[in-house]
Amino acid sequence: MSAIIPESLSCPCPITQHDTIQMAHGAGGRLSAELTQKLFLPRFANPALSALEDQAMLTVPSGRLAFSTDSFVVDPLFFPGGDIGDLAINGTVNDIAMSGAKPMYLSVGFIIEEGLSMETLHRALLSMERAAKTAEIAIVTGDTKVVEKGQCDKLFINTSGIGIIPDGVEISCRRLKPGDQILLSGTLADHGMAIMTTRKGLSFQSHLKSDTASLGKLVEAMLGITKNIHALRDPTRGGLATTLNEFAKSSNVGIEIFEDALPVRPDVKGACEVLGIDPLYVANEGKCVVVLPKDQCEAVLNEMKSHPVGKDACLIGEVTDKNPGMVIMKTMLGANRIVDMPLGEQLPRIC
Amino acid sequence: MSAIIPESLSCPCPITQHDTIQMAHGAGGRLSAELTQKLFLPRFANPALSALEDQAMLTVPSGRLAFSTDSFVVDPLFFPGGDIGDLAINGTVNDIAMSGAKPMYLSVGFIIEEGLSMETLHRALLSMERAAKTAEIAIVTGDTKVVEKGQCDKLFINTSGIGIIPDGVEISCRRLKPGDQILLSGTLADHGMAIMTTRKGLSFQSHLKSDTASLGKLVEAMLGITKNIHALRDPTRGGLATTLNEFAKSSNVGIEIFEDALPVRPDVKGACEVLGIDPLYVANEGKCVVVLPKDQCEAVLNEMKSHPVGKDACLIGEVTDKNPGMVIMKTMLGANRIVDMPLGEQLPRIC
Repeated sequence: MSAIIPESLSCPCPITQHDTIQMAHGAGGRLSAELTQKLFLPRFANPALSALEDQAMLTVPSGRLAFSTDSFVVDPLFFPGGDIGDLAINGTVNDIAMSGAKPMYLSVGFIIEEGLSMETLHRALLSMERAAKTAEIAIVTGDTKVVEKGQCDKLFINTSGIGIIPDGVEISCRRLKPGDQILLSGTLADHGMAIMTTRKGLSFQSHLKSDTASLGKLVEAMLGITKNIHALRDPTRGGLATTLNEFAKSSNVGIEIFEDALPVRPDVKGACEVLGIDPLYVANEGKCVVVLPKDQCEAVLNEMKSHPVGKDACLIGEVTDKNPGMVIMKTMLGANRIVDMPLGEQLPRIC
Repeated sequence: MSAIIPESLSCPCPITQHDTIQMAHGAGGRLSAELTQKLFLPRFANPALSALEDQAMLTVPSGRLAFSTDSFVVDPLFFPGGDIGDLAINGTVNDIAMSGAKPMYLSVGFIIEEGLSMETLHRALLSMERAAKTAEIAIVTGDTKVVEKGQCDKLFINTSGIGIIPDGVEISCRRLKPGDQILLSGTLADHGMAIMTTRKGLSFQSHLKSDTASLGKLVEAMLGITKNIHALRDPTRGGLATTLNEFAKSSNVGIEIFEDALPVRPDVKGACEVLGIDPLYVANEGKCVVVLPKDQCEAVLNEMKSHPVGKDACLIGEVTDKNPGMVIMKTMLGANRIVDMPLGEQLPRIC
């Protein structure tokens, strides 16, 4: 017996001609139209999407847009704290927000394995709907392909998105300067460890949960304090270590972080120790790294802490002119440890 | 022994640490960076992409944008007349162009099966590079995911794109009016029949070829004659029959087409007859249907014929106030036949 999912009680899966996905649902004919009318439009309807053209028409002010894309192949589809649906929305919303842009519009492309239950698809759609509402972003255009059973793993989702960059904001991995401070918006490794322990069937006493969340509102609030943020990135695949290495190399500066300042939840830390994994390399899905001048640091940190997704924000390090291109961690024992780029991820299909 | 591919002589696959795709190529670490540096950037480099941020920064004028997305799961990856690479570029370029917009920017999301040869990926990238150059569109942001062997079929590509809609252009499937004329830019069913005969291993004496092509320049030329085009669409999945049915239903008008006016190449017609397939329902990848007032018809048709991808353009029917929501074909024998929406596609994974 499967667990009762509260939202499926209040919003049951619409009755469709078939209760699993058929090849014809991706063929552009009558079954494709049924899928659009019964499953997609009730979740995402807005004027641009409901026009049902092959493209959305959007009106934008002149200026700078941020444009980003991400495909989601996470396994399993549903995991503690989230699922492929909210991950697909939040992932692209965050990539847009990391330029300082206000995320506005998303496209969604589904690749579905023949035979997937309509109920599973509907559950992911409900989750996308909620995440899009929270992030105040509109899904304006989409596409659905179906492949034969065994030719993809259940469901892959691509989202691409557009945001509008406010005037005066210049955020880039090339803008780090010696003396800049490095903030982290919350605890490390929650998403990756939630997936990893779920996939490996490990039952820890505590319940690890993904941190998937939209960072759009947090970034907007931070830019309300100062537009002078130098760099901003969400440390997803490859974790904090990868983001900091990319920053150090792109700006040709050194980065020092303090081991005792890195926030890791005790249950996440325990799971990392059991599995022999360094939380620095584990994916996060609702966190960001902020690099900014020292004189703005305190005000921005206070603003972050007042925000639900930034309440555990803290100072984790600083930019230096020593060891350009490298990330050094000051360990709790007082030693210096080089934090290198990982070769790959410890676990595939984390997002 | 495989055939010699001319472009692989002039542009061999770069030497990489591995000659097949590894899980780590999708993990955001050092192997991901190698893939980006050695395979992607040499093909697509432009300032927005080469900044290697998680999003592209684009400057646009104020006004209307067209935004579209499409995932490509075509099987086989390479087929007579094209491959997944040019299809993925042309497909989204065309969806954007069908709003009257000038296609400007593309995102690309790869989902790659572990073990795919680097050579195969490189061949698809070369094809994407050529198609993007022809369409004068820039690939400005991207994403790569790798899934375990057996969890996807070789290579799936999502492209999403942005175009700028000129002032005064109002193209919509809701704008058809009785008396409007219907033009088709060339022969029907070339793409679908090329895939179908390749997949089924049928060897016809003639060589059927996909019509995959960018329609951006053709649309620009047509709009140079008149901005008063009512509707425009590329009849891909579901073929011409689906596009016309969508037009008739969205505008609540009748559509009449003339069987003897429908252009089908003799070899395509032969293949359709052998396989018992109606070319009206077969996918096209480089054709468009144009609906416009009668007084503009001749000038636009002449302009289309002067263009390489419109040289076989012809008048195929008209919009009426009879039988709203329906498409009727006047057959060569003088009878009226209802052209209905298909339930699905005759062949899956056509694009």
